[in-house]
Amino acid sequence: MPELIIVGSIGLDDVKTPFGEKTSVLGGSAIYASFAASFFTNPGVVSIAGKDFPEEHKKLLTNRNIDIGGIEFKGKTFRWEGRYEYDMNEAKTLKTELNSLTEFSANLPEHYKDDKFLFLGNIDPILQLKVIGQATNPKFIAMDTMNFWISSKKETLIEAIKKVDLLLINDGEARQLFNTVNLLKAAEEALKLGPKYVIIKKGEHGALLFTDDTHFNAPGYPLEVLKDPTGCGDSFAGGMMGYLAKTNNLSESNIRKAIIYGSVIASFNAEDFSLERQKRLTNDEIEQRYKEFEKIRKF
Amino acid sequence: MPELIIVGSIGLDDVKTPFGEKTSVLGGSAIYASFAASFFTNPGVVSIAGKDFPEEHKKLLTNRNIDIGGIEFKGKTFRWEGRYEYDMNEAKTLKTELNSLTEFSANLPEHYKDDKFLFLGNIDPILQLKVIGQATNPKFIAMDTMNFWISSKKETLIEAIKKVDLLLINDGEARQLFNTVNLLKAAEEALKLGPKYVIIKKGEHGALLFTDDTHFNAPGYPLEVLKDPTGCGDSFAGGMMGYLAKTNNLSESNIRKAIIYGSVIASFNAEDFSLERQKRLTNDEIEQRYKEFEKIRKF
Repeated sequence: MPELIIVGSIGLDDVKTPFGEKTSVLGGSAIYASFAASFFTNPGVVSIAGKDFPEEHKKLLTNRNIDIGGIEFKGKTFRWEGRYEYDMNEAKTLKTELNSLTEFSANLPEHYKDDKFLFLGNIDPILQLKVIGQATNPKFIAMDTMNFWISSKKETLIEAIKKVDLLLINDGEARQLFNTVNLLKAAEEALKLGPKYVIIKKGEHGALLFTDDTHFNAPGYPLEVLKDPTGCGDSFAGGMMGYLAKTNNLSESNIRKAIIYGSVIASFNAEDFSLERQKRLTNDEIEQRYKEFEKIRKF
Repeated sequence: MPELIIVGSIGLDDVKTPFGEKTSVLGGSAIYASFAASFFTNPGVVSIAGKDFPEEHKKLLTNRNIDIGGIEFKGKTFRWEGRYEYDMNEAKTLKTELNSLTEFSANLPEHYKDDKFLFLGNIDPILQLKVIGQATNPKFIAMDTMNFWISSKKETLIEAIKKVDLLLINDGEARQLFNTVNLLKAAEEALKLGPKYVIIKKGEHGALLFTDDTHFNAPGYPLEVLKDPTGCGDSFAGGMMGYLAKTNNLSESNIRKAIIYGSVIASFNAEDFSLERQKRLTNDEIEQRYKEFEKIRKF
């Protein structure tokens, strides 16, 4: 049984940034999150891809001891085309082909159901709820979401938020969902729904963790080379959840550490397209940058 | 002799934010910076105001032991009208009446010339250079600037930057001045010009300190109540410089502390219009929030 289950999308992306252009590269929330988590644990992925999904990508995952037994293969793989301008904080979506993603059943394999750590990447909140309903023994469930679901399925999304321990959401989306400009108020509203933790992601500006009575400010890391921010949010979440699953320690101080490890993986992820930087990332580099994060905030 | 000289503008502002509207309230870079500095030291202000400048504002400053002997009084006071939308990070300037500001001589009073700590608020870089030329014994000169001077007097601005120890600049302006999206590269370019320190201000997202070989990330403080961000950048600079002048210690660790004290004053400043919050701010509140800044970043 994997220590961590990751549910989300698998895609083939066409990405253009001011620093280059790549076509048909590996992407999707489940991919970034599980690869990032694989630096700490051996996650299991629940997702769907097409029959056209390249063998080499499957191998890339299984070589990292990522369990792909929960991936369905049907029809054509989900495709996304996006572009970043010089402000790399937000992608402009040029095209989305859902393809087989519309048939995603979100069924947990039998041997995943008893898993303690669960990350629900950005997918339809109906499917997030369905996954939560199948978990027989959850210890810590985290979920992510996006503006599309806030606009189109707000009530279902709220139902899902009520059932998780940690909500991940970016700053603009938190403001949209809770109808306030004040992130502190947005976090308070989110906590009222049930989660013990809320993490507001601020892209290059880092992330904020809120609980009922504490607040943690994780810095962004200034990069010499920034090529493609695609998947940074998912890499952050995956790295964080991977560290939590590995350490099996839900104290707030350990959650803070996990957030920094997530930030470390996300910062590397932006240094190259798709998973290129993560593919050549070493544990030594991770530990070194973790120490850098300590240094840049000491006073 | 004051421990810190602050050069900048004095104004009367009309400000509208989503949380209210005030007319003809006290403002200007020299005002915010010197008031913030007065929590740590007794600064001297070099500026110009009109003969219409209200007596009560003069009293407000002198009651804080701010030396106003370097303020000229001529014609009408500089006026600024601005509005903030829900994204409070940037003001939209609706009207500017320079009035007597165009006659500002930027002459240091004789007993200021030997001063060791000097803050040059956002004014014409020609005047900033003129002030630097009058300082006979400077130990630490910091300067701020803005997009207007980057567009209109870039070469003079560069000359001024070459002569200071610390450049303060906001993120958008750093990108504009050094023609790069990458803040790390912008900071490197700024350091090459001569300053030992560069601080990039990111509004609600905090501030970054760069030296040749180190980097410090100061967090923003999430506010329950945010009414008016006018003067936060100047309050940050003034608080920081006030703390440095008081402690007379230019080690990097003390500069980091000074940045946090500056962030503390700036965070309070945003809680109300004009100087209202700073007027009722106590040293206990400052120390308490300083400790909060430690707590929100511990991991």
